[in-house]
Formats: sequence, structure tokens, C-alpha cells
Amino acid sequence: MGDVERGVWKEADQAHDNNGLHSQADDSKKTKLHETEIEASRAFGVAHELRSVHEVVMPTPKSTLHEFLDISKEMLFPDNPFRQFRNQSRRRKCLLGMQYALPILEWGPQYNFDFFKSDLISGITIASLAIPQGIAYAKLANLPPIIGLYSSFLPPLLYALFGSSRDLAIGPGSILSILVATLLRQDVNEETNPEAYVRLAFTATFFAGVFQASLGIFRIGFITDFISHAAVVGFITGAAIAVSLQQLRGVLGIVHFTNKADVISVMHAVWEHPEKWSWRTILISICFLTFLLVTKEISKRKTNLFWLAAIAPLVSVFLSTLFVFLTHAEKHNVSIVGSLKKGLNPVSANQLYLYGPYAMKAMKIGLISGMVALTEAIAVGRTFATLKDYQIDGNKEMIALGIVNLGSSCMSCYLTTGAVSRTAVNYHAGCKTAVSNIVMATIVMITLLALTPLFHYTPDVILATIILAAVLGLIDLKGIYFIWKVDKLDFLACMGACLGVIFISIPFGLLIAVGISIGKILLNVTRPHTAILGRISGTSIYQDIEHYSNASQIPGILLIRIDSAIYFSNSNYLKERILRWVDDEEQSIQERNGVPLQYVILDLTPVTSIDTTGLSDLTNVQTVLQRRSLQLALASPGIDVLDKLNKADFIPLFGQRWIFATVCQAVQVCSAIAKEMSLDQYNENSKPIPKNPMF
Amino acid sequence: MGDVERGVWKEADQAHDNNGLHSQADDSKKTKLHETEIEASRAFGVAHELRSVHEVVMPTPKSTLHEFLDISKEMLFPDNPFRQFRNQSRRRKCLLGMQYALPILEWGPQYNFDFFKSDLISGITIASLAIPQGIAYAKLANLPPIIGLYSSFLPPLLYALFGSSRDLAIGPGSILSILVATLLRQDVNEETNPEAYVRLAFTATFFAGVFQASLGIFRIGFITDFISHAAVVGFITGAAIAVSLQQLRGVLGIVHFTNKADVISVMHAVWEHPEKWSWRTILISICFLTFLLVTKEISKRKTNLFWLAAIAPLVSVFLSTLFVFLTHAEKHNVSIVGSLKKGLNPVSANQLYLYGPYAMKAMKIGLISGMVALTEAIAVGRTFATLKDYQIDGNKEMIALGIVNLGSSCMSCYLTTGAVSRTAVNYHAGCKTAVSNIVMATIVMITLLALTPLFHYTPDVILATIILAAVLGLIDLKGIYFIWKVDKLDFLACMGACLGVIFISIPFGLLIAVGISIGKILLNVTRPHTAILGRISGTSIYQDIEHYSNASQIPGILLIRIDSAIYFSNSNYLKERILRWVDDEEQSIQERNGVPLQYVILDLTPVTSIDTTGLSDLTNVQTVLQRRSLQLALASPGIDVLDKLNKADFIPLFGQRWIFATVCQAVQVCSAIAKEMSLDQYNENSKPIPKNPMF
Repeated sequence: MGDVERGVWKEADQAHDNNGLHSQADDSKKTKLHETEIEASRAFGVAHELRSVHEVVMPTPKSTLHEFLDISKEMLFPDNPFRQFRNQSRRRKCLLGMQYALPILEWGPQYNFDFFKSDLISGITIASLAIPQGIAYAKLANLPPIIGLYSSFLPPLLYALFGSSRDLAIGPGSILSILVATLLRQDVNEETNPEAYVRLAFTATFFAGVFQASLGIFRIGFITDFISHAAVVGFITGAAIAVSLQQLRGVLGIVHFTNKADVISVMHAVWEHPEKWSWRTILISICFLTFLLVTKEISKRKTNLFWLAAIAPLVSVFLSTLFVFLTHAEKHNVSIVGSLKKGLNPVSANQLYLYGPYAMKAMKIGLISGMVALTEAIAVGRTFATLKDYQIDGNKEMIALGIVNLGSSCMSCYLTTGAVSRTAVNYHAGCKTAVSNIVMATIVMITLLALTPLFHYTPDVILATIILAAVLGLIDLKGIYFIWKVDKLDFLACMGACLGVIFISIPFGLLIAVGISIGKILLNVTRPHTAILGRISGTSIYQDIEHYSNASQIPGILLIRIDSAIYFSNSNYLKERILRWVDDEEQSIQERNGVPLQYVILDLTPVTSIDTTGLSDLTNVQTVLQRRSLQLALASPGIDVLDKLNKADFIPLFGQRWIFATVCQAVQVCSAIAKEMSLDQYNENSKPIPKNPMF
Repeated sequence: MGDVERGVWKEADQAHDNNGLHSQADDSKKTKLHETEIEASRAFGVAHELRSVHEVVMPTPKSTLHEFLDISKEMLFPDNPFRQFRNQSRRRKCLLGMQYALPILEWGPQYNFDFFKSDLISGITIASLAIPQGIAYAKLANLPPIIGLYSSFLPPLLYALFGSSRDLAIGPGSILSILVATLLRQDVNEETNPEAYVRLAFTATFFAGVFQASLGIFRIGFITDFISHAAVVGFITGAAIAVSLQQLRGVLGIVHFTNKADVISVMHAVWEHPEKWSWRTILISICFLTFLLVTKEISKRKTNLFWLAAIAPLVSVFLSTLFVFLTHAEKHNVSIVGSLKKGLNPVSANQLYLYGPYAMKAMKIGLISGMVALTEAIAVGRTFATLKDYQIDGNKEMIALGIVNLGSSCMSCYLTTGAVSRTAVNYHAGCKTAVSNIVMATIVMITLLALTPLFHYTPDVILATIILAAVLGLIDLKGIYFIWKVDKLDFLACMGACLGVIFISIPFGLLIAVGISIGKILLNVTRPHTAILGRISGTSIYQDIEHYSNASQIPGILLIRIDSAIYFSNSNYLKERILRWVDDEEQSIQERNGVPLQYVILDLTPVTSIDTTGLSDLTNVQTVLQRRSLQLALASPGIDVLDKLNKADFIPLFGQRWIFATVCQAVQVCSAIAKEMSLDQYNENSKPIPKNPMF
């Protein structure tokens, strides 16, 4: 026996000794067993691997505080935003701190005229989109149209001060507006009590801002990650379809229409009185819808003509307003926007319902719609940040969006977000910084101060058509097909959300989207994957035998890989699953008269951590297997598993010689022993399992 | 170049060709590059490993239905309870089905006299414990004491019919009783409205049974796994302390006492009027408490004297009743139980609040207390099943417990569970089947029919003392110390629950226990572990460099292992983390003037699955790294990852030559290329990344 090998087993014995589970009389017998084992192992040419047994080193324990700080840091500050503060002078740290709080102080000083040129063009482009969309989306939310213009003025200004994204265009969103309308309608009827409706909308926006900022301040913004992308795609597609169906009211010129957005109610209202459809509005709608869709398609194919799709809505508004004005169509049952008050945002802070029954309702609405707005803005912001290769601090961005909504709710604005379509236009128009938002806000301001009378004769049908054109672009059939192709479970989630919105209601579809997402997380958490491994012939690679047909099991050995950390939410399942694998294997061996099972090796490579419940169940497995005369071996345990086993004094329970650094090693040693001696001979020194202190 | 190697690269090219990313003119150049690469690789003696490149086989796709059925089966029937039905005749299947629904039909026919002897002894033993405890725990729940006896009669009988555990002893529990009392008190005052209080208790029990059975029927019983063992230990310890403090009322003989169970209120009530303490009750209490604790200790040390601790409470009741009767102590301000009605359980089905305001309250109380009762019974049942090496179907057991509570609530019983102390006595007394429950129920029946007058003079103080002795045994300081030693995070959870109960209230402590458990799950789910790997010198083992000091990184290569499946709840974090590792590494290289970074290899061994969001973020990483002239390689991708990459047509995006079967291989090939040629030369044939269809 080589010196190294002797040394290795001596180390193991030393540990064994120190735990008082060793007696003098067994020494000679053990030495003989060791020698035979080493000889056997060498016969397989793995002597050099045995040296790596002492790779299974007990890790140096981290202090509790250190461990706790590490976890908190990773949890709350995953992007390490204060990295830049390292090794800086005090003055610089102050400056960095202020720049962190107000990003405009960071990019402001570096601003130059080239940037301004780009931002001016993009600002004008998105303003031409924002004005008609603002009016239209406010109507979608059942709010006075002027509020849509207010919400395209102040929020972008606030965002430019506090926001981190260079591309996000802030303003009302289509899906968000209909969600707000649906939620508000549950509590206040906008026809009988319009003033309370508007006040509730402002209050909900206020609370939405509070929730958004809180998520960011307490750095728990990661909860927006808990909704699966597939469910979001399904929800948005369904909501877009719902919004489109609702626009049939304006397009067909129907006066009495359902408030609900589900397809059955809408279809019923549409086909109830076909004779009441107004051919005028249908005509206007078809013409301009074609115009809008065509310009959109041209802009998509020739990206240098991006401005075409952007000004198309404004042009449509202008033309249709002119048409109505000249033909006096408003006297022929074509409903119009009506007069829009001139002037900037009036103060609304005194109108907020900060106490009383409406306050609770507003909080609920604010929470739901605020989370949706946040998820959309963060997702859009990240998408474009990736395209331009810069990072966004999610939590900081949430604080910014919270401040935007909080502040603007006190100035007659309702809930705004970073809408994907407007941001895409901003991006393609070549924006460089958030100054494009400032330019847009300035143009909206000019409109508010001087140009609002121009919209007096704007027909509602054109607003409906603009909304229709906008949301049809949100229906992402290509994305849904991609999901179907790649991941059927994800597709189920997607369809569940989509159909929930279309057939029941928008909030219900949202609930399904969130529920399915959480269900997926639970599934992953509570039913981790396990696999029986076999060796790929001619190599030392072990793979799942279910998927690799050239992987074959080793006789007498059952090799199970556990593909997850082991903790309370899955440890009982894992215990039962392992024992079931063993039962099935023994039954199968019996049926085919194979080599009797002697070893169960657990490949713990993916087991990144284990807690006290997991430890307890693992030792249960050991106990049960021992009763059945099977030997359990642990292969490739991670640092946390070794650490916990050590602290719990469970190493002697398993036996240090049955803990291996690699699967390869474990299989080779077990095979060697199986061939040379019986398990009983090898374990002659084992003492009875100490009582588990947890029972 | 060997035939095998040529064949391997030809395969790769074929795939490349088929994706139309290949042109004729590049052929000769590519062949030359390949030759150089193979030569370089051979120089490192890894030619044989290259053969295993074709281990990275595209898996055979499973049909969607098959995949869905697999997942459902694992989720809902993890223990495969219908295994035994395989290959059986139809008649046998019928029989097996009936035995599954009524386990008594399974073990009944195999019953023999030996079993009966053991069950008789254990039944008598637990009956002697059940009678005093039943009376005492009902008082703990502020219910008439006779209800405690009713609840020790019918529920065990029902359980013997439907239950699967051979050891579980059913009856009222101490922690459960005080939880029920706390919850009921929030809605009904038992002093002013005792009848409504009792009816609400029955109704809550009814709904608890409904919830418990539903969990089992819909096979979502795994949600009881979502509470961490450490939090449970903390909660039970805290509740035991709270119950002990409450017993000071009976021990000190104080009449006016607080209803709250938190330590501050109790201490205040105790020390408010020390002069009102009754020396008589204190004396009785101390004497019998000593007696009970001593007998308990003796039974623990000498397991053949188990019956001593079991009959001690009954003996105490007998002696103290005799003492009060003889000394007429009830005339000296010693409160007594009073008269207990003779006769069996009256029907109470007509008293249930199945509609009206109380129904909702009862549902809430039933849900909370039902879940606690279930968790305790399942945990206790599993513990003893493990000791005796048999399995329990968790879901089936839940249906049984649900039926027990549902049925017994209609017969004047309140919420019962499988209490750990009584079950332990049952186990040590040598029970063989649930017949011990039948024996216990029979003895309680005899008591109800004939012996209730005996308890007329039983002093309340002895009941308080019995409760005190029972719950002191639940305070698991050894278990808490073990948790402290092994896992500090678990210890925080434990202490949080314990202190929440002691200082605020029992329901609040329960909330903390559940909240911390869910928080731990979220932590695991949203912040998965990643590690930088280095090679352990002299071996081909790669380990985390943070924990293995003899692991050193390979120059020019950053090797990151991702220790979790990649899906929507963690993919954004993983993306940002990987990019941050890259940033830190490049900065560190710059500071020490090291070999410039060229390759980023992701070890995907633990990545058991990936979803569409994960795929999207992975390709984002690829995009960003490409911009920085870094090459991304994927090592050891699991079957699901390969499958999804293939379905999404992302393989050409990464380049099949950059997907390796093992980390070892990936490192060796990348090192070889780094030494022989620059990355640009190697990638000359790469086309621009196709547009990600998800944007």
C-alpha cells in the first residue's frame, strides 16, 4: 500500500477515533480490510483518485454575522449598487450619493448638443403620439380626456429627474387604463357619480405611487420577478383583445353598451341592435384604421421612416376633426370630445380620499394597478437597457416610478407607466437620454396652454380607432407560437391568463396569471427532480438513464442524483422518492434475477444547501436503508452539506469513508468492495446508529 | 486528424449547414481552423474526450400529453399509491380499492390475539391518560369539561376505521385547545354567551374537517410541507410556555385573570394581587406537579415502566378528588369541576352555524386550527411510521382526519388531532394497530356511562397541574440548541416564532412561523447560488474557489456554475449576477495585469430545467458578452436545457461547438484554442446573432 493511500485512510481513522467510535481490538482487522480495499481499488487504476479523498475537506466555518450579512446583501442588493463607492474620497462619495438619488445629476453635466438634437427629434416624435393617445386612453379609463393630457405633461418631467432609463417614455398606457377603469367601476359608478370617480382615480394613483416607492425603498422589488413571462404575454394579449372589443362601441357608434370587457357581453351588446350602428362612424373608422395600420407596417419595414407611424395618429385626429368641423357631423349623431379646458394641471392634492371608506378601496386599486404598472415599466426599461447595453437598478427605478405617481396624483394625473409602444418609438427615433421626455412634456404643455380648443370637434370614433390600432400591435401571436413550440407548460400558463381575460374579466385574468406563476414556483420547490444515473460506456460520465440510452447502470449499485437543494418544503418528498426508487429497483432486480442491490449512492452535486429538516430526513433514509442491509454513500457533497453534517455530528453516522468527493470515486470504491468482500465484512466496525437527537 | 474527430466536427458542421449559416467559400478556411484546433487539443491529450462530444445528443422529444401526465403524477401522486394495483385481476382491484378507502379492511382480516393483547395494554394505558387530559384540555379551550370526554370517545373510533397510522392516538391536544380558545374568543365571549361559544366551536370543527378532507381529496396536502421544522419547534415551544403561564391562574387560585396568553399580560395579572393567592391550591399543585414530573422522568429512563407516567395523571386526579371530598375544600375557595352529565355524546348537528355571520367566522377559525391540527397529526404519524418502517399516504391520512373532525363535530366533539405525547405513550406501550384507539374509546365510553360522578369534586388546580406537566414536556430546549448549532438561519426562524407567541399572541406567532417559512422558500427561489470554479491541482475536479483554497482559476477563462434551475423567478437576477461576475473578473485582471479574459464558461450541471424567460435571459447574456468580445460556452447542459435550446432554435445562436458535455472538456478546448489562435480567427465563420424573436 502506498504511503499516500495509507495516509488517507489514517486520516479517516483519526476522525473516526476522535468521535470515540473505535476500539483497539478492531485495529488489526481494520488494517487488513483497508489493505484489501486499497488493493482492490488500485486494480481499477484509480489510486490517483483516492488522493482526492482528502479533497473532502471540512470547510472553515463562517461567522454567523458574516453569513447573515452575505445573505442580506445578495437578497437586497444583488446588483451591488454601491460598488462604485469603493475607495473614493469623502467628497466624491457625497457626490456619488446625490447622483444615485437624482440620476439627472449624473448624466446632466455630460450633456451636449448632439444629444440634444437626437432628444429633440425623439421628443417631438413621441409627443405627436402622446397627445392623441393621452386623450384616447383617458377616455378608455372613463376619465375626462383632459386628464390624459395632464398625465402626459407632469409625469415625464418627474421621471426625467429621478429615473434611470434613457429610453423609457412615460405616460398613460392602454392596458393599464382599462384595468384602472375595471377596478374603479367595482366601487363607483362614473355615470352617476363622476366627481367621486375622478377623485378615487387620483387617490388610487397616490397609493400606487406609495406602494411602488416602498417596494424600491425596502428593496423587495424582486417580487415583480414572480410573474412568468409567458403568463404576462398571455395576459397582455388577452387584455388587448378585450380592449379591441370594447372599441367596437366607438367604431359602430353604439350608444348603449355594456361596461364589461369579456367577449360574451361585448358580442351580445354589439349584435343586440345591428340597426343602430352608425355607417358614418364605421366609415371613418375603417378609413383611418387602414391608414394607421399601413403606416405602422411601413415604419416597421423601413426603420428610417419611424416618424411615419408616430405622426399618423395626430394626422388622423387633425383630418377627422377637420372633417367633422366642416360637415357638422356632430349634429348627425357623431359624438365628439367636446371642450377641453385650457391651462396646466390644477392641484388635486385636496381631493384625495386619504381617510374614510374610499381610502381602503383606493389602496386596493392602487396596489393592484400599481404593481401592474411597475411590472410593465421595469420589463420595458430592462428590455431597452439590454439592447443598449446598460444596466438599470430595478429598486431605484421603482422608487422613481413611485415618486412620479405620488407627485403627479397631487396634480390631477392618473396612473402612468413606461408604455412599450411609446418607448419603442422613442428608441427608434434615436433618443439619448430622458431629455426626450422633457421635450415631449414641453410640447404637451404648449398644447395645454394654447391648443386644446383644436380638439373640440375630434370625433370619439377616431380615438377608438387610435386605441384599436395601438392595441392590435400588442397581440403577440408570434411570441405565443414561440412559447407553444418551446415549453408547453409555459404555454398553458399563457393561455390560462389570456382566456381568463377574454372570457371572464381583466382582473380575473391577472389573478390567473399570478396564480399560475406562483403555482409553477411551488411545483419547482416541492417536487424536485431526481434521476437514476448510469455510466456512459467508455467514459467516466454519468447521466440520466431515462434520457441517455447508452448509459447503463452499475450492477449492485443504485445511483440517484438529487437535483435540488434539500430543505423543509421538499425533504419529505425526497425521502419518500428515494425509498421508492430503492423499492422499484429491488423489485426489478428480483424479476430479472440480477445482482442483488448493495449500495445506494446519492449524487449530491446539485444539492447546494440543506437545512435541519433535510438533515433529519436524510438520516431517516440512512436508518431505513441500514435496516434493509443496504449501504448509503454520499457523493460530491457541496460545502453547505458538509458543513451542516459536520456541525450536527452526523459524519460518524454515515461514516466518513462513505462520503466521496466524486461520483466516479464512489462507484469505483463500492464496486471494488463488492467484488472483494461482502458488506458485512467491511462494516464490522460500525457501531449502532446513535439516537437521532431530533426525536 | 483522426476519423472520429473529423466525424465529430463534420456533425457539427452539418448542423451548422442545416441552419443555413454556412457558405461554400469558408469551407477551406474552416477545415484549416478545425485541423489546428484538433491538433491543439490532441496536444493536451484530450482526444479521447472529444469523442464524448457526441454525448451531447439531442434528446428524443416526449409528447406533450406524456410530459403533462408525468408532471401531474409526480405532483399529485408522489408516492404512487396505486402501484399495488398493477397486474391484478379485476376482483382483486375492487378489493384493493375498498381497502384503500377503509384501511381497517386491510389490517382487520390479519388481526390475531397477540396483536389484541398488545393493543389492549396500550389502549388501557392511553385511556388512563386520555380521561384526565380530555377534561383538562376542554377547560383549556374554555369549553365544558364533558366535551373533552366526548372528544376522547368518538374521534378515536372514527380514526380506527379510516386512518392509516398504527400508532397515532387521537384526542384533544393542548396547543390546539389554546389556539381554538384564542381564535374563538376574538368573536364570542364565553362568559356572556357560553351557548354561542360552544356552537361556534362545533361549527369550526366541522369546517376544519371539511378543509382537511379537501386537501386530501384534491391531493394538495403537500402544502403542510411548507412550514419549516425549525419554525414549528419554535412555535410549539413558545405555545407551551404560553400555556404554562396561563395555568398559573389555576395553580395560584386567582379568580380574576387575563384572557390573553402573552407573557406581559400574564405576569401583570399574576403579580397584581399577590395577597389573593390561595396557599391551598399552590400546595396541592406543587405536590402533584413534582409527582407527575418525577414519574415522567422515571418512565423516560426505564422504558419498561412507561405505564407509570401514563397512570400518574389519573392517580393524581383520584387522590386530589378524594382529598377535596374528604376535607370539603370546595367550601374553602377551591374551585372544582362540578357535575358532569352522564351518558354518551348528544347529537349536535342541529347546532352548527351553517349560515349567517357565525358561519364565516367558523370557517376562518376552522381553516387555521384545522391546518395546525393536520400538520401536527401528519408530522407525528410520519415520525412513528419511520420508527416502525412503514409508509403513510399523507393525502389519505388527511381525508381520514377530515372525516374524523367532520363526523365528530356533529356529535358534540371539538377539534382533535394526533397528539405527540399520547402517541408516544401508545408507541412505548407497544400498540400494534389502531385497535388501541378502539380500546381507549371503549374505556372512555364506560366512564361516560357510569363514572362521571367521580369527577364532581376534582379540583381545577389538578387539571391545571396536569396541563402544566404535559406542556413542560413540549418545551424542546435540546432541539432548539441543536438548531442553533447547525443552522443559524433556521434558528432565527425558530426564535421568531417562539418569541412571537410569547410576547404577542399564539395566532401571531403562527403567522410569523408561516411567514418565515415562506420567506425562506422565496429566498431559495429568487436568489440562487452561483460559484466561480477553479481546478483542484493535480485532478480534473472543479470546485468553488471561495471554499476550496487549493482550487485555482484557469487563466483567460471565467468558469461560473449556476446552482439552480433557471426560470422566471430568478433568471433576471442570474443574468445580472453573471454579468457582474464578468465585470469583477475583468477589473481584477486589469488590476493585477493578468491574462485577459476570453471565455466565460457556464457549468449548467445543476440547471435541471429552463423556461422561456430563462432562455431569453440566457441569450441576452450571450449578446452582451459578444459585444465585449467574450465567448460564452455552455458545459454539461441537462436534458431539458438542450431540449429547449433545440426547440427554440437557439443552438446556432450559441454555436454547437461551444456546447460541451463536461466542464473538463470545455476548459481544455478553450485553453487549447486560446494558446493556438485568437478568438477572432476561430469565429471567422460566425454570422451575426439572429434577432431574438421574443422582442
